[in-house]
Amino acid sequence: MTELSENALKPGATIGILGGGQLGRMLSVAASRLGFRTHIFEPSATPPAAHVADRITTASYEDAEALAAFAASVDVITYEFENIPTSALDLLETLKPIRPGREALRISQDRLTEKTFLQDLGLQTAAFADISDQASLDAALTQIGAPSILKTRRFGYDGKGQARIKTPDDAAEALAAMAGAPSILEGFVNFSHEVSVIAARGVSGEIACFDPGENIHRDGILHTTTVPARLSAGQRMDAVLMAGKILNALEYVGVLGVELFVTPQGLIVNEIAPRVHNSGHWTQNGCAIDQFEQHIRAVAGWSLGDGQRHSDVVMENLIGADMDRVPELAREPNAALHLYGKAEAKPGRKMGHVNRVQKPQT
Amino acid sequence: MTELSENALKPGATIGILGGGQLGRMLSVAASRLGFRTHIFEPSATPPAAHVADRITTASYEDAEALAAFAASVDVITYEFENIPTSALDLLETLKPIRPGREALRISQDRLTEKTFLQDLGLQTAAFADISDQASLDAALTQIGAPSILKTRRFGYDGKGQARIKTPDDAAEALAAMAGAPSILEGFVNFSHEVSVIAARGVSGEIACFDPGENIHRDGILHTTTVPARLSAGQRMDAVLMAGKILNALEYVGVLGVELFVTPQGLIVNEIAPRVHNSGHWTQNGCAIDQFEQHIRAVAGWSLGDGQRHSDVVMENLIGADMDRVPELAREPNAALHLYGKAEAKPGRKMGHVNRVQKPQT
Repeated sequence: MTELSENALKPGATIGILGGGQLGRMLSVAASRLGFRTHIFEPSATPPAAHVADRITTASYEDAEALAAFAASVDVITYEFENIPTSALDLLETLKPIRPGREALRISQDRLTEKTFLQDLGLQTAAFADISDQASLDAALTQIGAPSILKTRRFGYDGKGQARIKTPDDAAEALAAMAGAPSILEGFVNFSHEVSVIAARGVSGEIACFDPGENIHRDGILHTTTVPARLSAGQRMDAVLMAGKILNALEYVGVLGVELFVTPQGLIVNEIAPRVHNSGHWTQNGCAIDQFEQHIRAVAGWSLGDGQRHSDVVMENLIGADMDRVPELAREPNAALHLYGKAEAKPGRKMGHVNRVQKPQT
Repeated sequence: MTELSENALKPGATIGILGGGQLGRMLSVAASRLGFRTHIFEPSATPPAAHVADRITTASYEDAEALAAFAASVDVITYEFENIPTSALDLLETLKPIRPGREALRISQDRLTEKTFLQDLGLQTAAFADISDQASLDAALTQIGAPSILKTRRFGYDGKGQARIKTPDDAAEALAAMAGAPSILEGFVNFSHEVSVIAARGVSGEIACFDPGENIHRDGILHTTTVPARLSAGQRMDAVLMAGKILNALEYVGVLGVELFVTPQGLIVNEIAPRVHNSGHWTQNGCAIDQFEQHIRAVAGWSLGDGQRHSDVVMENLIGADMDRVPELAREPNAALHLYGKAEAKPGRKMGHVNRVQKPQT
């Protein structure tokens, strides 16, 4: 293994993963393909990742002893979600490298910080304003106007912690829905469709992007991602350059998801996620090296895959009762099932996805 | 899940796998994709499959208590190798279904039984004769001639337990190499190349074959498998029909590997393996559903994938010191690495493989 960079992990090393959901699960499988072991840290019992991990620690993020033992047993630490308690990160970073680094987490944990960061990079975002009370909301609505969306600055996902403001009359109710949490008002963006770029940066600074995918949401949750996305060659290049700009500014190591709105005025960044992303699941059946392996390669200090795509893919999420369709999906030709091993198919719960592989158009 | 056959396992069920090597490891990963858990039974410590399995039992095949506990914890039993001690199977089959069934094991465990079975099906094999002593070897050599190969009837793999007989003068030495084990003399087959068919049969009798791959061996160990293989349309059809005939005759459930010699006189069966097969590893990056998932689907009573191939692939085994090439392989575009997590890279040891994905020729 002499030709990998000096700090590259060798097969046999252990990757620590904070979070044992489906992303941790698929990261664990990808790590195994490169000969790595994984150790999952997850507070809840029987997490999906446990079925395919070498070790699992079931403990709270407040349990300093468990965190220290976890760190001692791994060679590098990564994560499947961005809302890791700061105190846990403060402890872990003294013990082992955390990749991607703290800066990416700090920025993506807070919508206001994130939007400000993006704007400072010269990237377009929706108009936005910091909201702390009715007065700041009223002032912001005067400037940004309605329709617009009020969102909590932190801990939102899959449409949670959001309230639409169709007219200024909705303002009070929307603010009440935030339950006193620091919030951000985002202006309405008139976009034709949403795409996302799954991009990666390695320890030595090299960058590789997967082909942008086109996303369709239902009830605030990603429904399908289709590659290739409807984008002009220029838009495609813009999307990739924007992702690269973000990765470089953060001195990022790992995979990052960037959601973009396609508008006549160009691409507008919706949000970034400092981790593997649901809209990148298509790579499992469209590329020789998928987003999960790409992330593991980056955090392990390996060279990245180039992101080449061998097939067109439509990824569809299986949510809640969609599990009843599994027998029918299993009979579809060229449909690759990926189920997460979750016990209960609750409404709105991501239970799996299916990648429908198409031959590339020639 | 009402539309799967009544006996089909539901996600959440546990697949028991006898053997924790790389095949058990990749079966375990495939099972997880369908939401199954796996329980590995393996006598040796720290087997490769343990890193990606839900449970592992480390015990001998003579340990009846461990076997019974294993069987009690799983819903169906499958295996990654054919030389499972009969006594273990006798016990296990009273407790849980074993798929593929005993008949396939009985036949493939013994080269003489296997060749006789194939001949009775009307399939071409090399000329062969049962060898128990010098007299039977002399008689067989008169009939079959030299060059020929003397092989132990049981427990041979990767060229082990074999001795070439170039001239009748080599006979005594070859027989001594068998160390008294019951043996078989196989006549020399003049073939242009070797291909293998990875075929599957489901519980309701449906059959699906992957495209035949072309195999090249080095030092008795598979070196590369290339798809598509060099075969005429007629030969390709013959190969698939032969595999189907074998599957049906055995009332087989699961994936079976069939090695075939290509000769001017048609396809000659070399051997069959009642399990996923090294020459089918290319399917991981060439098909939406690979041989490992196909096997799990079959033993779980699910519908099979259709075996369609979306890409051309060249699979190369990484043996022993080939592990030193990993950094270089990691930099190759479209090369998918699959490492087995084995601690020590001993000479001749299968450490991993790489699937080089090519765009399909159009």
